[in-house]
Amino acid sequence: MYRRGLREGMDTRQYGYDQQTEPLSSRSVSKSPHSKRLNISKGKAIGLLVLLPLFTLVIGLLIGLSSHTSRSDDFATSSVIVDTSTQQDVRDLLFNNLKAENIKRNLKALASKVHLAGTSQEEDILVDLIVNNWKEQLDEVKVYPYDVLLSVPNEKDPNYVAMKNSDGSISHKSKAYESPLTPWEEENFKTIKQPTFLSYAAAGHVEGQLVFVNYGRVQDFETISRTLNIDVRGKICIVKFGKIFRGDKAIYAERNGCSGLIMYSDPADYSSDSTYPNGWGLPPDGVQRGSLHLRDGDPLTPFYPSIKSSYRIPENETGLPTIPVQPISAEDALIYLSSIGGDSAPSDWMGGLNITYKLGGKMTDDFANHNIVLHVANTRPITEVKNIIGFIRGSVEPDRYVMIGNHRDAWVFGALDPSSGTAVMLEVARVMGEMVKSGKWRPRRSIVFCSWAAEEYGLIGSIEWVEQFEKKLLMNAVTYLNVDIAVQGTATFRARATPNLRSILYEVTKEVPNPDPKEVANNRPTVYDTWKKVYYDKNNNGRPFVGFLGSGSDYMMFVQKTGVSSLDIRYTFDEHNKKLSSYPVYHSAHDTIEYFEKFLDPDYKFSLAMARIWGDLARRFADDSVIPFNPIDYAEQIRDMINIIDKNNAKQLAENGIRLDGLHSAAETLLKSSIDLARDISNINITNFLQVRELNDKLMYLDRAFLDFQGLPGRPYFRHVVFAPSVHDSYAGAGFSGLTDAIYEAKRDGNWEKVKKQLSITTFHLLSAASTLTKF
Amino acid sequence: MYRRGLREGMDTRQYGYDQQTEPLSSRSVSKSPHSKRLNISKGKAIGLLVLLPLFTLVIGLLIGLSSHTSRSDDFATSSVIVDTSTQQDVRDLLFNNLKAENIKRNLKALASKVHLAGTSQEEDILVDLIVNNWKEQLDEVKVYPYDVLLSVPNEKDPNYVAMKNSDGSISHKSKAYESPLTPWEEENFKTIKQPTFLSYAAAGHVEGQLVFVNYGRVQDFETISRTLNIDVRGKICIVKFGKIFRGDKAIYAERNGCSGLIMYSDPADYSSDSTYPNGWGLPPDGVQRGSLHLRDGDPLTPFYPSIKSSYRIPENETGLPTIPVQPISAEDALIYLSSIGGDSAPSDWMGGLNITYKLGGKMTDDFANHNIVLHVANTRPITEVKNIIGFIRGSVEPDRYVMIGNHRDAWVFGALDPSSGTAVMLEVARVMGEMVKSGKWRPRRSIVFCSWAAEEYGLIGSIEWVEQFEKKLLMNAVTYLNVDIAVQGTATFRARATPNLRSILYEVTKEVPNPDPKEVANNRPTVYDTWKKVYYDKNNNGRPFVGFLGSGSDYMMFVQKTGVSSLDIRYTFDEHNKKLSSYPVYHSAHDTIEYFEKFLDPDYKFSLAMARIWGDLARRFADDSVIPFNPIDYAEQIRDMINIIDKNNAKQLAENGIRLDGLHSAAETLLKSSIDLARDISNINITNFLQVRELNDKLMYLDRAFLDFQGLPGRPYFRHVVFAPSVHDSYAGAGFSGLTDAIYEAKRDGNWEKVKKQLSITTFHLLSAASTLTKF
Repeated sequence: MYRRGLREGMDTRQYGYDQQTEPLSSRSVSKSPHSKRLNISKGKAIGLLVLLPLFTLVIGLLIGLSSHTSRSDDFATSSVIVDTSTQQDVRDLLFNNLKAENIKRNLKALASKVHLAGTSQEEDILVDLIVNNWKEQLDEVKVYPYDVLLSVPNEKDPNYVAMKNSDGSISHKSKAYESPLTPWEEENFKTIKQPTFLSYAAAGHVEGQLVFVNYGRVQDFETISRTLNIDVRGKICIVKFGKIFRGDKAIYAERNGCSGLIMYSDPADYSSDSTYPNGWGLPPDGVQRGSLHLRDGDPLTPFYPSIKSSYRIPENETGLPTIPVQPISAEDALIYLSSIGGDSAPSDWMGGLNITYKLGGKMTDDFANHNIVLHVANTRPITEVKNIIGFIRGSVEPDRYVMIGNHRDAWVFGALDPSSGTAVMLEVARVMGEMVKSGKWRPRRSIVFCSWAAEEYGLIGSIEWVEQFEKKLLMNAVTYLNVDIAVQGTATFRARATPNLRSILYEVTKEVPNPDPKEVANNRPTVYDTWKKVYYDKNNNGRPFVGFLGSGSDYMMFVQKTGVSSLDIRYTFDEHNKKLSSYPVYHSAHDTIEYFEKFLDPDYKFSLAMARIWGDLARRFADDSVIPFNPIDYAEQIRDMINIIDKNNAKQLAENGIRLDGLHSAAETLLKSSIDLARDISNINITNFLQVRELNDKLMYLDRAFLDFQGLPGRPYFRHVVFAPSVHDSYAGAGFSGLTDAIYEAKRDGNWEKVKKQLSITTFHLLSAASTLTKF
Repeated sequence: MYRRGLREGMDTRQYGYDQQTEPLSSRSVSKSPHSKRLNISKGKAIGLLVLLPLFTLVIGLLIGLSSHTSRSDDFATSSVIVDTSTQQDVRDLLFNNLKAENIKRNLKALASKVHLAGTSQEEDILVDLIVNNWKEQLDEVKVYPYDVLLSVPNEKDPNYVAMKNSDGSISHKSKAYESPLTPWEEENFKTIKQPTFLSYAAAGHVEGQLVFVNYGRVQDFETISRTLNIDVRGKICIVKFGKIFRGDKAIYAERNGCSGLIMYSDPADYSSDSTYPNGWGLPPDGVQRGSLHLRDGDPLTPFYPSIKSSYRIPENETGLPTIPVQPISAEDALIYLSSIGGDSAPSDWMGGLNITYKLGGKMTDDFANHNIVLHVANTRPITEVKNIIGFIRGSVEPDRYVMIGNHRDAWVFGALDPSSGTAVMLEVARVMGEMVKSGKWRPRRSIVFCSWAAEEYGLIGSIEWVEQFEKKLLMNAVTYLNVDIAVQGTATFRARATPNLRSILYEVTKEVPNPDPKEVANNRPTVYDTWKKVYYDKNNNGRPFVGFLGSGSDYMMFVQKTGVSSLDIRYTFDEHNKKLSSYPVYHSAHDTIEYFEKFLDPDYKFSLAMARIWGDLARRFADDSVIPFNPIDYAEQIRDMINIIDKNNAKQLAENGIRLDGLHSAAETLLKSSIDLARDISNINITNFLQVRELNDKLMYLDRAFLDFQGLPGRPYFRHVVFAPSVHDSYAGAGFSGLTDAIYEAKRDGNWEKVKKQLSITTFHLLSAASTLTKF
């Protein structure tokens, strides 16, 4: 997993699951759980008159459907089509053949050694392992190599932070690696030591005074210079990991004129529980690695794949950092933070170290005439990395690709991130392949298994591949189902997805047995039940909350470049009760099999549940005559998002002569079209393959209609009008970032013309999407 | 028809039909007519070894096919599929029901009055006429209105050019309209007089000295300032129509600092034959109208449709002309040109007026102390214009749209341009509609009839509609078949098309009886036979030459924005023997029914032939099980184009370390993929509808694969890597304008990095296209 923090997913709170203590819940559109459908034309009597009969019809049809299948009251496009008993047989075959012990064996093969992108362990040994497995198990396997710009520490010239004493000598040098804390680590850290670094940090050697800037966000840099009157120019800054993407911290430091930047993991963010090996918290010497690349993909080949014939732009046009940046442990940070003087930091900047946090800019008296030294010697070699793509060819529609994917590369051992996911994917591929080879089953559509390279450096493997096959994916990809970390906690399943995948997520998780015996004992026999308990969403008819996809893993380019409806799922800890930026040992050397088995999934039960969910999702998309997308969920979500934008900005928009009526009306047009489509589906003649294909194409291409090939303003690599990440994190939860970013900026710079333009573009794309759901 | 000159189509000569006198024919890749297929890997023994067995196979298959159908040696994808006798029956029904007298009646209804875009005659009366017809004849008809920026002369303040005498009085004022020259014109010019103007020319009143700048091309302005040492800044320039798009003349004049620009139709370019009403040449008072809009589409809504909710950019961001520009007749031009002094113009600048052309910059002694006055009072109102779209719904694949289109608006009467085309389209729609209503036929796919608005202003109707339905067209449009002028001469049929439409053009024209009795008597019984005689193409196995599509009519946005394979057809005069920039009365008031019936098609026989060709093309695309695209023709064309680029630039590329090997290899990959696809098609099981659909999708989406959604460098509205118009007209014939423009510029500015980048992008798109023809 590449990114954490708000950039990974949009703010989950605005469409918030029901958290009584959630301070932002007041910003949600308040509705009673049962008034949802009738809210569509709230306050618009004419609209209601027109739409009401349609709703009644559709609801009637849906009831009709569910009575046939005794499934659920969810919109179940597929229920009409597939013989339920056959469905059940295939699902049983899948579920019964997936084995926890195989996932365990896979994890051992994958995560016993360091497998950083570009290394022989990753690109040769693991590639051979997977290719050889899939050659036996699947119809075909292909390797897609790319020559991309990576970034590695220099073995002969290690990075460090240190103190330069008044006599010029160096002391208090930061550690280059984590120390082993258990016998397993003693044994396994020996072979290859993976130094701490942040990829793409510039090489450089700087010395000077240290300034503490909290989390290194825009507002933190504003506070330090304007309120606290400290000039960071020419200084080395030190910030805590967390809250925002680390690459943004680096760019803000660079823009503010810092000579270098140090990041560390504060115990308040990563070690609130007892620390490894006693608990799952990050030990004091644990260091978070990660990428600082902001643009994603191979930095040298924006928009195009890094194939042999591709032109490489000069490195100074990549936007990569130009200052040295280095991560350190809390243990090392304590030394430097306690050596700096100056005023005390604001109380809300204090972390979990047992010191009074100072702002710095000068040293304490004990360290007078000392300087902080930051030394980074990273290099940026062009390196071959490899995607592995395995295929099961569809029996009826081989040109329809249901894609499941996970990245293979890790910062160190990566037992959780990503090998817990890879281990599960390999087991799903094995079982599905076996079902095909045995002649018991062949999916209607093709299933594609994707093992992505170099995700940690900036989604590189998936992006280069999507760039290479943009047109093919645009026309032929059904959906992309991503798992990065499969299990990072056992509290609940959770999902992020384009809204049209919600219904199928509910359907599938209701079929998967709950891997937590305590939950089963508490009368929550399925994965769905616990999910619904933890992520109860009052705004979603009480169905579990499903978040928005951000830019944190390999689904990103599928959504942004090719408009392929996607999801990202995992088992996780209780994310909203534990206020953690990520699971504690994220991107450190302690993310090991030992850690996984001790604190997460000793019996691989949760991993098995993930295999069943993931596999059954793929099966449904591959087998259901009507592809199980729910366009009504998408349209309703959009309507709700627009209501929130309106509510949050109505006054200032009105003051500037801007009304959202056209946008609301477009959203209603889209909703009406999606309801019409649902009706057409319920009337379908399944034996008319071309009619089914026509309807499936409409369902499948809905997300394409939200692409603006012109790109978002100033960000041509983001095309999705509804779900592109926001430039301004604080608004991330609103969606429609072209529009909401323009509003955010207009409130500051008064440029309301830009808002009008974005409003027009947004409105048009909703109408355009509606038109794709209907005939001309 | 919006544009003439080189910008309309690419230079037809480089892939030249066989003109012995053609000076550029030596630039063609020379091949004997029969060695075509084996030339693929010429000089590449390894490639040949790999490909030869495939060729043998494919040729074998093709022979197999043609022996089944006794049709031709063309690649005939459809021949395998459709029962020939049924085909023949439907074709006979179509051909027999199309009636010349109906086309005559249609033309009278359309072109008896002035029907400029935005006028009531055009947007109300003709729209009602067509809508009412189609409501009866077709399954459905829809009107798509757009509010767009037009440009009109001011009735109360006419535009003029004049002489300002030394006493300040005005004389020699240019005429505001053409004078009637025949009783028919006497009668019909009375009602509405359409003043001469160039749309989007800025309003302004300027006075000063006149400078003659030949055709107003870049090289003409260079010559006048550098060689002839005349400073045009602040002067009014006068140029001849022709050679390049008039909008470019205006922008060059503006950039060179002219205060205003006058254009006139020189007899050498438009009146070489005897003039109307004695012959078809432009009479001395004829004036060419036209648009100066360079970007195409509604100037206020680039990239997005001009629907109600759309944002309009400020007029000063549109790039529309900022200087006054006005067209005048040869008769009026003679007055001003004979009043100016200075040196004689270069001999190759001389036109057909009976004077010695002077460069100007000062007046003759007779006109000392006189000034030329240019007065333009055009306004730019936002006006509603209407597309009319009629539908015949497909029986089997209603979501596949075969589109035929023609614009409706004219500068004056527009009997040829465009009403000769509209008259034919209405007859095709009537007959097809009747065939459907009578129950005798319903096409497999939907047929869509498009009557476009405001084409003359810059393809506005078609562009706004393609912008509005971009996603739907991207996914569902099969092909777009354009006719602008149906008959502008009777020498031969001619076609421009994406190369995958060539085969079907040959097949269809071989079925249509030759409308010229002299040709029939000379043993050329079909349209194809005369076409082949006039446009014999030795580089195309002796098949008739098919040109490249440019940007001259409504196919443009279909190709450039949505990658829909398209064609543009008409009957024409002997274009390469008559060195005319267009048919002589183009865009003048003399383009009338009387003119049409007197000099072109008195019996509407040629119009009828056009109806049969156009209708049968639509029928084939709508009915053939396998869509009749020939991907091999496309791939071979691309290979040939690359050979020419290489040949023309090899030395300088090599000197700058650039090799085209990767590009040649990508072209061969594409060719191989297209041959593989042809083989798959020949093995197809026609009863497997989904298999047929899969192959059809590949055929249909081929042009999509040539779109670069990033747009061409600096021209984001052009996306087609192979067939975007060139920035530098002189290179237009080479295609691949991203690459060839970069080479052209690098030869001047030495920026070969840009060439490398474009080479990479071009190579990638060929590989990408190849990948869409095969499975993953």
